[in-house]
Amino acid sequence: MSIDLLQSKIRKLKTPIVVGLDPTPELIPPELLAQCRDQLGDSVEALAEGYLRFCKGILDALKKLVPAVKVQAACFDALGWQGVKVMQELLAYAKKQGYYVLLETMRTDVGHIAAISAESVFGGIPCGEERVFPYPCDGLVLNGYLGSDGIKPYLPWLKGADAKNLFVVVKSSNRSSAEVQDLVSGGRVIYTAMADLTLRWSTDLFGKCGYGEVGAVVGLSSPSAIQALRKRYDSLFFLVPGYGAQGGVAKHAAYAFDRLGHGAAVCASRSILGAWREQSGVDYPEAAVAAVEKMKKQLEAYVTVL
Amino acid sequence: MSIDLLQSKIRKLKTPIVVGLDPTPELIPPELLAQCRDQLGDSVEALAEGYLRFCKGILDALKKLVPAVKVQAACFDALGWQGVKVMQELLAYAKKQGYYVLLETMRTDVGHIAAISAESVFGGIPCGEERVFPYPCDGLVLNGYLGSDGIKPYLPWLKGADAKNLFVVVKSSNRSSAEVQDLVSGGRVIYTAMADLTLRWSTDLFGKCGYGEVGAVVGLSSPSAIQALRKRYDSLFFLVPGYGAQGGVAKHAAYAFDRLGHGAAVCASRSILGAWREQSGVDYPEAAVAAVEKMKKQLEAYVTVL
Repeated sequence: MSIDLLQSKIRKLKTPIVVGLDPTPELIPPELLAQCRDQLGDSVEALAEGYLRFCKGILDALKKLVPAVKVQAACFDALGWQGVKVMQELLAYAKKQGYYVLLETMRTDVGHIAAISAESVFGGIPCGEERVFPYPCDGLVLNGYLGSDGIKPYLPWLKGADAKNLFVVVKSSNRSSAEVQDLVSGGRVIYTAMADLTLRWSTDLFGKCGYGEVGAVVGLSSPSAIQALRKRYDSLFFLVPGYGAQGGVAKHAAYAFDRLGHGAAVCASRSILGAWREQSGVDYPEAAVAAVEKMKKQLEAYVTVL
Repeated sequence: MSIDLLQSKIRKLKTPIVVGLDPTPELIPPELLAQCRDQLGDSVEALAEGYLRFCKGILDALKKLVPAVKVQAACFDALGWQGVKVMQELLAYAKKQGYYVLLETMRTDVGHIAAISAESVFGGIPCGEERVFPYPCDGLVLNGYLGSDGIKPYLPWLKGADAKNLFVVVKSSNRSSAEVQDLVSGGRVIYTAMADLTLRWSTDLFGKCGYGEVGAVVGLSSPSAIQALRKRYDSLFFLVPGYGAQGGVAKHAAYAFDRLGHGAAVCASRSILGAWREQSGVDYPEAAVAAVEKMKKQLEAYVTVL
């Protein structure tokens, strides 16, 4: 089961860090981008090539330190097909390097459209007698505002030997998340209603680690929400974004974990990808390693992964 | 203003039909797909080429009948970069043919990621002294579950000469939409809370037609919701999906319009793209024309666009 795979990788490396691969031009060292532009002109291709080289450098540097990565589709989509092409290459590269690989699309769809996405990502595209997998990954990060129709088409792939995962946005890490997610309905806040649905979608889909194959995204900006949700849902795996650049700290992240230090993973992106900007004369992979080691220590002060 | 552009195109062609370009292999005549495979092998490229030729055929056939099209990114994303590449070509082609062009991504993002998407789609990618627009369109269909942070980065582009539009999913057309969207909070159903936000995002962004530049997606599967929303929000433009294949009918679609037959547009996709499957010996563009003319007549029984 895929949630077991994620949990075992976390246990092996003794840290629940997920590095978000959310490249932007500002996060890439100017000399790397300049190299790409020398070769490919001042073009979208050059930018996409910069994203690819930069992210591969991060993956190479962190593979013995970090169990999982989360690829932000929006950053690559923003470059058009050239961006999507390098994203596909990056997903395959991350899988090959041994990472647990999440693809964040944040989509929410009606059933027949969700079925198309699920089939493509998890089932592959039939071409003659082969299947092509455009987006090789272990799981997807989705939105659940459209309810079960938009999630159920993915569920058949969460079973079996090559099982996949889902993470559904329950409580997001941005400030305005309260506008919809914190509204109270019948004694439940909306994010709790979304967590109830997430748990329902996990029915019969529990890993050996005790957590469901459909996890919940719970942002670090709401420590009290993390506490309340952890108390109420002891079998939902939490993906916790918002560490570092978005202001989240280890003390609050710790609320997401059980007493064995299991059941959650903490995402950081800009604080790791852009760490080179804080130190002159340090290469970006080296700076990323230092940033991960710092984050690892910060988390260890509050969470021990057994 | 872009909402005026949409309304004027609707008035010119005297029908509020939006054709959804949601291609799947099943919607494409086998002989067209076979041609593409003869040329490009049994490959993802061949499938993408099939999508492109098929959709161009639809656009060519309908350009004097239909004011607007909505391109479903998920269908093209499902083919990887080859799909995205033809989608970009298709968006440009639809714009050139004179359609009002919507791109449905259904994403919802935290602020700094939403800013990346907004910049790419509406602002373009800076390359040297030029800007490349990967996704030429007049507006986007987005999800608002993350609140204002995910929408505000788009708003600066909804002003001025080349203004764009947004449509935010308020009440979706799928059956399970009730699971989250129909929950009641403080006397408001959640979809009404989303509509309130949508109206707030339109502040100072009203077209001459009286409608806001941030419209609301309101599915045809909930006629009572359409009625209630139209009564409460007389300045939100409604994009109404779910006609035809999803079961929606003209009588209910009529609830979305004001007394001049303005303020709404009705989407149909499979019932038009796949109309050729219902009639043997008819080419797909011809069948699409007949399906649009039928839908137009059905709508005219209840809505007169003045």
